[in-house]
This record gives sequence, C-alpha cells and structure tokens, in this order.
Amino acid sequence: METEHPTDRAGLEILTSEECLRLLASVPVGRVAVVVDGEIVVLPVNHVIDGPDPVFRTARGSKLSAAEQQNIAAFETDHYDEQTHTGWSVLVTGRAEAVYPESEVERLNRCGLHPWASATERPFWVRIRALSITGRRIPGTG
Amino acid sequence: METEHPTDRAGLEILTSEECLRLLASVPVGRVAVVVDGEIVVLPVNHVIDGPDPVFRTARGSKLSAAEQQNIAAFETDHYDEQTHTGWSVLVTGRAEAVYPESEVERLNRCGLHPWASATERPFWVRIRALSITGRRIPGTG
Repeated sequence: METEHPTDRAGLEILTSEECLRLLASVPVGRVAVVVDGEIVVLPVNHVIDGPDPVFRTARGSKLSAAEQQNIAAFETDHYDEQTHTGWSVLVTGRAEAVYPESEVERLNRCGLHPWASATERPFWVRIRALSITGRRIPGTG
Repeated sequence: METEHPTDRAGLEILTSEECLRLLASVPVGRVAVVVDGEIVVLPVNHVIDGPDPVFRTARGSKLSAAEQQNIAAFETDHYDEQTHTGWSVLVTGRAEAVYPESEVERLNRCGLHPWASATERPFWVRIRALSITGRRIPGTG
C-alpha cells in the first residue's frame, strides 16, 4: 500500500528522506553538478550511497578540483516512464569533498563500485557532503 | 555506419554538435541546473529544442527567478543501458532567460510541449541560451 503523500504547489508528491535515500541507491547513475570557471557543469557518474552522501570515483579533472576546493555541489538522480508519464527525482545539495584518508579510501574501494567508463583509472573518490535531500514524484493518474 | 569518434582522456567518445542536438531532442526529459541562494538546484523538466536552445515551461519559482536574472544555467540530458553499460550525455551550458515577447510565447505554445506534471499551470517559458554544447558517449565494448 502506498501511503498518502503531501504535494507541493506544483502538484508533485513530496518524498520523505527515507524514500529519497532508497531511490538514490536504486539507480546506477546520477548526475553531479559543480560550478567550474563560472559555468555550471553537470556530468553523469556511477555512484554509491555512503550514509546520506553520494560518493563516486573520478580521475583528475573538474570534479576533483571542485571537490578539493569544497565547492558547492549537487547530485541528482531520477527515473521516468515515457508511457505513463510518471517519474521521480531526488536532489542532494551540499559540498563536494575529496576523500583522502587512506582508511576511508580503502573502505570505499571495497564497496564494489565499478564505473562503466573504464578506459582510464579513476583513483580518487569524491563525496557530495549532503546538506539537504529532497525528492518529488509525479503521481500516476491511474 | 558509425563514424570513428575521437575520444577524450577518459576514453569517452566526443560527440559532434550535430549529434548533441539530435540526442538532446531525442529524449522527453532533461535536467535544468541553476544556482539559487548559493546552492545548485538540478530539476528534471520536459523540454523541446528551439534552435540550439533547450526551452521548457515553468510556473513561478526558482527556475523562473533564475531566468529573470539571467543566471548561469546548464541543461543536461542522458540515456544509459544498464545491461550493456553504455550510454551518452549531452550538456548545454549558458544562461537562463525568461521568454516574454508575445510572438515568441505564441510560437513556443504551438510547439506541442505538454509537461507531464500537469497539476498546475506553467504559463512561463524559460530558454537556456546555449553558449556551449558538448557530449560524450561510453563506447560499447562489443
């Protein structure tokens, strides 16, 4: 049984934090957004959820630089059904953070994340330190 | 026949602008990213492509405010296959822009965009004025 959800002013169901965390972990791909040189960059990554925080592997580049400067960041996942026009989205806002302590890196290395784009090594871990987690669902009309 | 694509340092195929525009228009949902009160907000929308620019409908709220201030913005679409671990993503970076001239609004109203979340009116149009369009594809291993 679905419980009744409150809706926002756009008529979208407001998801609870528990639902948001479950949905974040239910998909293999999310999108990291960071500001780089005055532009917003949004790139898909394979992620896992560590506590309330999305974490992902990266090589040197814009995502790692943003993380080293603890820039503002966001992480979005969604899923939609083209036939029924239903779907959900979850947004984590916070700061990017490079994970350097060896014990942390070893722990994350054991979580079994294998990025799909595997042509290069992605030796670094980046955490999106979650300050807020929100989610919405388009209710089915059925 | 697929043409040979150059790859970036991560081993991802670099898509041409033409491919990016075709892929942007091939999916019904994209994600708008704007900075609001010092946070990056990323939200899915139903969009159409007008020239090189993604456009979408919205109600009053964070996306319209960002557009009225011509804030930096990005628009991302992607598609991936969980079985084959392949996929593509396209990123438009630029500025958000509210569309107010009546002739423009009427023209966009005729484009047949019907947002899935239809509980509220979305009388306003927002354009992401594209400054750059880039895209990548994870090459299949087959």
